[in-house]
Amino acid sequence: MKPFTYNSNPRLLLAFIISTLLLGLLACKDQTSIASSLPSWHDNENSQRLFQFITDVSNTNNKLYVAPKDRIAVFDNDGTLWSEQPAYFQLLFAMDRVRALAESSPELKAQWLEQQPYKAVLENDMKALAASGEKGLIELVMASHTGNDSATSEEYAAVVTQWIKTAKHPSTGKAYTDMVFQPMLELMSLLREKDFKVYIVSGGGVDFMRPWAEQVYGVAPENVIGSSVKLEYEYRNGNPVILRRPKLNFINDKAGKPIAIHQHIGKRPILAFGNSDGDLQMLQWTDANSLPHLSAYIHHTDAEREWAYDQDSPIGQLKQGLTQAAEKNWLVVDMKKDWRKIYPNDQNQ
Amino acid sequence: MKPFTYNSNPRLLLAFIISTLLLGLLACKDQTSIASSLPSWHDNENSQRLFQFITDVSNTNNKLYVAPKDRIAVFDNDGTLWSEQPAYFQLLFAMDRVRALAESSPELKAQWLEQQPYKAVLENDMKALAASGEKGLIELVMASHTGNDSATSEEYAAVVTQWIKTAKHPSTGKAYTDMVFQPMLELMSLLREKDFKVYIVSGGGVDFMRPWAEQVYGVAPENVIGSSVKLEYEYRNGNPVILRRPKLNFINDKAGKPIAIHQHIGKRPILAFGNSDGDLQMLQWTDANSLPHLSAYIHHTDAEREWAYDQDSPIGQLKQGLTQAAEKNWLVVDMKKDWRKIYPNDQNQ
Repeated sequence: MKPFTYNSNPRLLLAFIISTLLLGLLACKDQTSIASSLPSWHDNENSQRLFQFITDVSNTNNKLYVAPKDRIAVFDNDGTLWSEQPAYFQLLFAMDRVRALAESSPELKAQWLEQQPYKAVLENDMKALAASGEKGLIELVMASHTGNDSATSEEYAAVVTQWIKTAKHPSTGKAYTDMVFQPMLELMSLLREKDFKVYIVSGGGVDFMRPWAEQVYGVAPENVIGSSVKLEYEYRNGNPVILRRPKLNFINDKAGKPIAIHQHIGKRPILAFGNSDGDLQMLQWTDANSLPHLSAYIHHTDAEREWAYDQDSPIGQLKQGLTQAAEKNWLVVDMKKDWRKIYPNDQNQ
Repeated sequence: MKPFTYNSNPRLLLAFIISTLLLGLLACKDQTSIASSLPSWHDNENSQRLFQFITDVSNTNNKLYVAPKDRIAVFDNDGTLWSEQPAYFQLLFAMDRVRALAESSPELKAQWLEQQPYKAVLENDMKALAASGEKGLIELVMASHTGNDSATSEEYAAVVTQWIKTAKHPSTGKAYTDMVFQPMLELMSLLREKDFKVYIVSGGGVDFMRPWAEQVYGVAPENVIGSSVKLEYEYRNGNPVILRRPKLNFINDKAGKPIAIHQHIGKRPILAFGNSDGDLQMLQWTDANSLPHLSAYIHHTDAEREWAYDQDSPIGQLKQGLTQAAEKNWLVVDMKKDWRKIYPNDQNQ
């Protein structure tokens, strides 16, 4: 057989070019399905409802069509995009940070060994830590923001980046970024493919999430909304810095969530995912959008592969939310029944 | 001559297809120029410097290349994207609003006729209004936020939308949205074409700008950062609303601007445009970006087509900023010399 050249058979070449063009066109055609886009979700009533909503609002020929500029999706982080047991991961970061700061300064260590909640952390006394209550936990998180080596926004980001790269979860031994939910990564990816703008709206610190959210979740810093500390601008010999102060500026939880969504985005979401009563107001706000919309809860039901908890859990309590979800027919994702895998490195089930 | 068909001459058809493909490729090649992209700018040293910066950072082969995700451009609004004389347009809105609210309620009118700064507005007494100082002006703006018909975020947006559609500027008689700067519209459009994310970072109220910023500037609500009032979330018989309270939450001016940029965007801009000392910190923050960057001032120099003012103006004062711009070699746009037209409906010069 002769080598294939232009001169040898122009008709064959022409046919080849046309087929290639046609194949290209076909490849562009929308071919998403649950199996291809959400492979870690079981193909059942819940995933079908979710998938149908996404394809309907992004289909110009569907009566539920929503213009891309209004396709706003918001996701809580702790318990919705990654695990949150036995404590919010940012609290575990704060505890690691308190230990590291104490190691670097004998004076600070001596002082903290006399002072709760620091003493509890340094002595690994979980009971005393719990007894310090929400106030104690906030104090710990504030302390983690304000070492001498993390006073500016950029220094703090470097500290978080270093921690997230190296720290391990106390009971699973996994890196924290390996404890994100694979089905949710697939969902966010599908949403971006369908021209949604995907936001994280979390009670966690905005500057704690931003250094790694883009790499892990594909969510850019400007799409991360969270709690914040007070900031100060300082012009240091011609070099401006933003300084972090150990004082709460905004708590992005409960009614704070729709308020932050309004301040930051300026429109109501059409899709919202949460997992606790702290997300209820965000789901209500979405549910009252005049555009087609879907509010959804993740229900932690899998004690074997993750954790099982709801109305009685001190972390991620879900009680009012479940009641309202039933009344309003919100989507309630059952982690055990709906997800083939939880974490990226799990085996499919 | 025979009709041109596939059978008649396959080689000719093939040549035709290939030429079409090549032409298509050529059409995709970057062909922007100052004349085509910034037609309202004179082609001079200033516009060349600006244009060169934009093309350099968006050219993968240039040593100044910046990835699209980091191409953040921030623009002040009052005096940078539209005029701000004889008073910030939002203050003129607030005055119109006070008059309208007084007309709708005889009780309120009687009360306000006894009370500054409302009395000054109702009696058109500009001297008394000026005497009420910044505190009085803020009080007026707060009052404009909180009529009975504008208590919720959505009601307030409707009031602003109605005003911007119908109100006329006291000295030009133009609609306010006809007093935006055509050269800046072209600049923002070029930036978006070059995959920049374009933000407004203004001392004006975020909810005052959002209802019209997308239509007028092409800037979506989520890219508008501004001052804000305190908000409250209320679940009214199953219908959630966000209520506006007449209390300042955040003043997005001076050092507030880099702080808001950090809270909202989470990274430093590479391009910043302002026109007053209130923008100085934002320009400093941009100037200290480790990526290639450009800080720029608009200098109001055109008393004939717009207004001419700088260091002695009570509105949009530019004094420190001009000094620092000269020291740091920032771009200083001279409206009179650099712009062929100011407003969209002006004639070219």
